[in-house]
Amino acid sequence: MRLSRYFLPILKENPKEAEIVSHRLMLRAGMIRQQSQGIYSWLPLGKRVLDKVNAIIREEQNRSGAVELLMPTLQSAELWQESGRYDDYGKEMLRIKDRQERSMLYGPTNEEMITDIFRSYVKSYKNLPLNLYHIQLKFRDELRPRFGTMRSREFLMKDAYSFDLTKEGALHAYNKMFTAYLRTFDRLGLRAIPMRADTGPIGGNHSHEFIILADTGESEVFCHKDFIDFDIPPVDTDFDSVDGLQSIFEKWTSRYAATSEMHDEAAFAAIPEGDRLSARGIEVGHIFYFGTKYSEPMGASVTGPDGKEHLVHMGSYGIGPTRLVPAIIEASHDENGIIWPKSVAPFDVSVINMKVGDAACDAASLEIYQKLGNAGLDALYDDTDDRAGAKFATADLIGVPVQVIVGPRSIASGEVELKDRKTGARETMSIEAAINKITA
Amino acid sequence: MRLSRYFLPILKENPKEAEIVSHRLMLRAGMIRQQSQGIYSWLPLGKRVLDKVNAIIREEQNRSGAVELLMPTLQSAELWQESGRYDDYGKEMLRIKDRQERSMLYGPTNEEMITDIFRSYVKSYKNLPLNLYHIQLKFRDELRPRFGTMRSREFLMKDAYSFDLTKEGALHAYNKMFTAYLRTFDRLGLRAIPMRADTGPIGGNHSHEFIILADTGESEVFCHKDFIDFDIPPVDTDFDSVDGLQSIFEKWTSRYAATSEMHDEAAFAAIPEGDRLSARGIEVGHIFYFGTKYSEPMGASVTGPDGKEHLVHMGSYGIGPTRLVPAIIEASHDENGIIWPKSVAPFDVSVINMKVGDAACDAASLEIYQKLGNAGLDALYDDTDDRAGAKFATADLIGVPVQVIVGPRSIASGEVELKDRKTGARETMSIEAAINKITA
Repeated sequence: MRLSRYFLPILKENPKEAEIVSHRLMLRAGMIRQQSQGIYSWLPLGKRVLDKVNAIIREEQNRSGAVELLMPTLQSAELWQESGRYDDYGKEMLRIKDRQERSMLYGPTNEEMITDIFRSYVKSYKNLPLNLYHIQLKFRDELRPRFGTMRSREFLMKDAYSFDLTKEGALHAYNKMFTAYLRTFDRLGLRAIPMRADTGPIGGNHSHEFIILADTGESEVFCHKDFIDFDIPPVDTDFDSVDGLQSIFEKWTSRYAATSEMHDEAAFAAIPEGDRLSARGIEVGHIFYFGTKYSEPMGASVTGPDGKEHLVHMGSYGIGPTRLVPAIIEASHDENGIIWPKSVAPFDVSVINMKVGDAACDAASLEIYQKLGNAGLDALYDDTDDRAGAKFATADLIGVPVQVIVGPRSIASGEVELKDRKTGARETMSIEAAINKITA
Repeated sequence: MRLSRYFLPILKENPKEAEIVSHRLMLRAGMIRQQSQGIYSWLPLGKRVLDKVNAIIREEQNRSGAVELLMPTLQSAELWQESGRYDDYGKEMLRIKDRQERSMLYGPTNEEMITDIFRSYVKSYKNLPLNLYHIQLKFRDELRPRFGTMRSREFLMKDAYSFDLTKEGALHAYNKMFTAYLRTFDRLGLRAIPMRADTGPIGGNHSHEFIILADTGESEVFCHKDFIDFDIPPVDTDFDSVDGLQSIFEKWTSRYAATSEMHDEAAFAAIPEGDRLSARGIEVGHIFYFGTKYSEPMGASVTGPDGKEHLVHMGSYGIGPTRLVPAIIEASHDENGIIWPKSVAPFDVSVINMKVGDAACDAASLEIYQKLGNAGLDALYDDTDDRAGAKFATADLIGVPVQVIVGPRSIASGEVELKDRKTGARETMSIEAAINKITA
């Protein structure tokens, strides 16, 4: 992408409304724009990161055996009256009347709708287990949306819903998502710690939040520091292995970890002092097993091997992509801007032409840009007529992992500079060596 | 994907509510489910096709130089009051009050919001031309939603918005989209004919609808039959060439073509009778140039090379992916089901194991399934314990282009059958030959 043809509205000033660093940096880097209170546009740079986050979530959901569909944003109130949650949900639910005065709502979550889909089609235990997920917009009419897309009203959620014949089956489904979540957050460059959690309006009695530690987190959390070094389940994890996944679950719940709602002072005090971590955290995922809470009122049952009807055991599993993007920034930035993990960087490399109009700089920059593109990399070519200093600041701000700097002095000897955004390390080398290093 | 682990709720009976073939086939093939009047879930098979359609739209938008972002679904009423359209839009606009009694709406289109984004950031002609697009849900509260996702209330739209300093620039932007649309529909397996169109509530005076001919189309259309054989602009079309794109535009508007609203009986009668096409059509895209209709009331201007402020000239360009899916089916099906063009098929190939439990059938089917997967193809492996006849019917219904049929008799001599869904042609060959043929 040539920057001169892109839409990257960088802000030079720190926006006053931003209280936390990720919000500030997302506004400054031209990633998002607030349209109404708690409702955001994702500008092109932000959209790219969001897409990469979604792609990783999707890959890991698919790997675990979950199947993707897409439910709509608007739901009928009747469905929620069936489950009994229509009145429970309070003012966070955005209630709507359509032109025919039918009561609708903008879905804050989809337990009712997916249960309705399930009961319409699935009649036999032979079609189980089943886990269906979608990545779809949700709306929760928070009184105080804040921190940019970290707590917005219209937001994206990946929500998965599992259906099993028995509680044991449902707990295996739970462990599949537990494992998929560990892998997902790791691939996003985050260390997420599963913590026993309160179930709130979703319900159920077996639930974990995945929390990343960050000073700006909204929740106070307490855990054993062993979590920092636990191994992540590998790519070839067998999701069909009940015992294998149970041992991953047990390992990752073998140490104390709790949010303040679930905190047990005495248990925490029993940990050797040097091993205690008391910090602030950001919730990036939440999983629930809730048995027959929805299948019972909504009549979602299947014929079992015994020929009898059985209510299905369900769980639901949420990740918020539009919250993950700022969470990644909270975990990875410096005073100059964002430092993207490679897996979600909006571009793989920035090519910075220090002197547009200089024949040697133009030719070398274009050559590098095209060769990186041919090698399958996504390069952002800064071919604007900004000053070199402004270009460096922009490149640092938007946090692309590698910068190739093409300047008139070094290009005279056929060389360019390579800068690693994270370490700040710079190296001078030939064009060919630079391309080889980046594409290696 | 193993069918035993997938969610493909095939309906055996023809659903009564479906009036047109695409709606019937989408319901029968388990692609969609109505959740409320005119509001649909896209079940896994449908979601796959929708994703492929979106990917092609996105590639062609990007090729033409448009830049992707993502605006939210909910908008503030104030924006629409600025443009003057808040009252104009009537009951099709879904109006909402949030918990703080602010007037919101579910966006039926995004001219106002994108103009607001533009005016916030772009101040100079140097940042033009610019074309921003998103693929996002829209809501139009139609009184009579019908034909499944062909005319639904909540639907997906790709909408692009161009900004230029001058009318000439804007017409070049228009031609870019015109050309991108010709390529997009062609890649989707459709022959779309651009027809001069009425501009409706979007406004402006230069507009084309892209119409595909289908017996079930809602509009009556009239055109010259030369359109059927016109060449599609090639992949290496230079979108920066003003003259090149203008000549594509002129070629594709050189013959008579009009919807009934714009029909000129006399002009049509002047065409030699054998060259007249009078048919029904489905609108799959609509493009508009509307000059300063929004930039003027909303104050979207840039400094020109002359140092003065100039209102920007705008256009907008829509394609409905959730309508395109049924449109493709209308254009490509037979009495047994859907016949997907390769480019949007939910799977590349179906592997049908006629006798699950037979060691030779199981081994051969698995081998073929895995080798096709390793070759980068998306295969659906029917490993269910349905009867062979039901499996054949399902494969035909869901319309995957190629079927590999593994039966106990032919596998005894190491052979399988290959069936082309479109022609119905069957060939018997070795496993290796079958894999080579499919992956060629």
